Amino acid sequence: MTEYSIGLDLGGTNLRAAAIDREGRLLHLVTGHTQYSEGREAIMADMVDAIASLRDQQGAVGLGGIGVVVPGFISLKEGVIRNCNNIPSLENFPIREQLSQRLNAPVILENDANAAAVGEHWIGAGRGVNDLVLLTLGTGIGGGVICDGKLVRGFMGMAGELGHITVVPNGNPCGCGNRGCLEKHASATAISALARLLGYGDVTAKQVYERAVAGDERAREIFASMGEALGIALANLVNAFNAPLYLLSGGVIGAWEFFAPAMLTEARRRSFSFRTTDTRVEKAKLGGEAGLFGAAYLPWSK
Amino acid sequence: MTEYSIGLDLGGTNLRAAAIDREGRLLHLVTGHTQYSEGREAIMADMVDAIASLRDQQGAVGLGGIGVVVPGFISLKEGVIRNCNNIPSLENFPIREQLSQRLNAPVILENDANAAAVGEHWIGAGRGVNDLVLLTLGTGIGGGVICDGKLVRGFMGMAGELGHITVVPNGNPCGCGNRGCLEKHASATAISALARLLGYGDVTAKQVYERAVAGDERAREIFASMGEALGIALANLVNAFNAPLYLLSGGVIGAWEFFAPAMLTEARRRSFSFRTTDTRVEKAKLGGEAGLFGAAYLPWSK
Repeated sequence: MTEYSIGLDLGGTNLRAAAIDREGRLLHLVTGHTQYSEGREAIMADMVDAIASLRDQQGAVGLGGIGVVVPGFISLKEGVIRNCNNIPSLENFPIREQLSQRLNAPVILENDANAAAVGEHWIGAGRGVNDLVLLTLGTGIGGGVICDGKLVRGFMGMAGELGHITVVPNGNPCGCGNRGCLEKHASATAISALARLLGYGDVTAKQVYERAVAGDERAREIFASMGEALGIALANLVNAFNAPLYLLSGGVIGAWEFFAPAMLTEARRRSFSFRTTDTRVEKAKLGGEAGLFGAAYLPWSK
Repeated sequence: MTEYSIGLDLGGTNLRAAAIDREGRLLHLVTGHTQYSEGREAIMADMVDAIASLRDQQGAVGLGGIGVVVPGFISLKEGVIRNCNNIPSLENFPIREQLSQRLNAPVILENDANAAAVGEHWIGAGRGVNDLVLLTLGTGIGGGVICDGKLVRGFMGMAGELGHITVVPNGNPCGCGNRGCLEKHASATAISALARLLGYGDVTAKQVYERAVAGDERAREIFASMGEALGIALANLVNAFNAPLYLLSGGVIGAWEFFAPAMLTEARRRSFSFRTTDTRVEKAKLGGEAGLFGAAYLPWSK
């Protein structure tokens, strides 16, 4: 009998769930059927179906546990998503309790970026590293911190909200209530907003990247500006944690060549310990799978 | 036989050392004799004398260990102070090894603010709290983080350098190489520099405080500005750690009534989790003794 666990990642536009064994081998993957716009009940039913089908298939005997990861500010104590821009219908709903009841099994709830840090630490770029910080650079920016081998959760489970570090005190307004949050200056959304300000019209971050590749100086400036914002946040994180490894993941890291020089210059200038120690800033390895693998590892990480 | 340990705090203008028992009772306190301006050898001899005299007096049998805390960026791995504005003669000198040799006993070296966090966690305002962040607001600003009951040291021992969090990206220049460090906008030194900018001449932070008490509006604005800077840093720390307790210590907290309102307003605005959870910001309890008690606790905290 293989020991395995089930991870579910409610990310992007559709859910994915997998049975994964203790060595990190993916045994089986299923994807959801509903659009999030179909509302809470459809999403809940979809999650329960995905997990139940994996359990039926692999057998309940070897099941180590169930981990579910969702975007947004989560109150771990209550098992509730407090704030979730992508799927507002799930806000302030007892999601963990409901899943647990319908599946008749305990469910561990976690934030997606926290789970990604767990996944990278388990079998990705952070394997064997005791302390690391992960930033996921996508439409928003999430964060996860591993300290002394364990995920930093905080007393309400809201630790690692690193996309909401202030990098420009009077900067762009954010849905969280703050101004100048890292994610408003360095995410894919921020890149396309910057491009719009420069007269590019309605372009995606990927299109801005393609222009940078083609030699467009203004497009390159956008990535330099984004890199600076990231460098400020990185310096703060290095000053706070002095971890040996900072990982970046998410679609935006495709533009590494254009933002990394400004990011590293800024981080070096703003952090004595970054400048004087062998602190690594690297791309994460698991890509979009980190959250799913992290979700599966949660039952074993307690 | 009482089990005890020896803590030494190389703070301010003179050193203090104490024998302290496991319940946190101060058994004996000695202070140093030299001015730091007398140079490294005088300071080293003074440290060794203070510790040796306490050990002779209390007996070597019950000695649990020796903890020494110093200001500055410390490389714990090497036991060396990398950067220390107050006592530059100690920079890049093998202080831990030298102390250990001269005392013929292991010595634990730690940063002063980190030790203050340990002290407050042990027998101060953070007793029984598993996660906390301490900021020491003095001539500079230091920080210490306790996570899951343990001091966050980082891979080189440079974690918790929270005075160097960037709060104003193009703000006042700092000796660490950065601009807009928290300690350049919210320390006692920053308060007196702000007062000078406002035409007060050469005044101390305490004198600015006295003017604020007397009703001087501009003096009150100085504390409001300092409180805002502190609120930005606090929000970043809440977003990163989601600890239930943030402690402030140091001389500047005497002006709490004038800076705390702006600090809390700013932190609330800039941190979703601060605004929506019961996060406490409080004065530390041990005052100037926190580092000394923390130093003594270090041998027991491993």
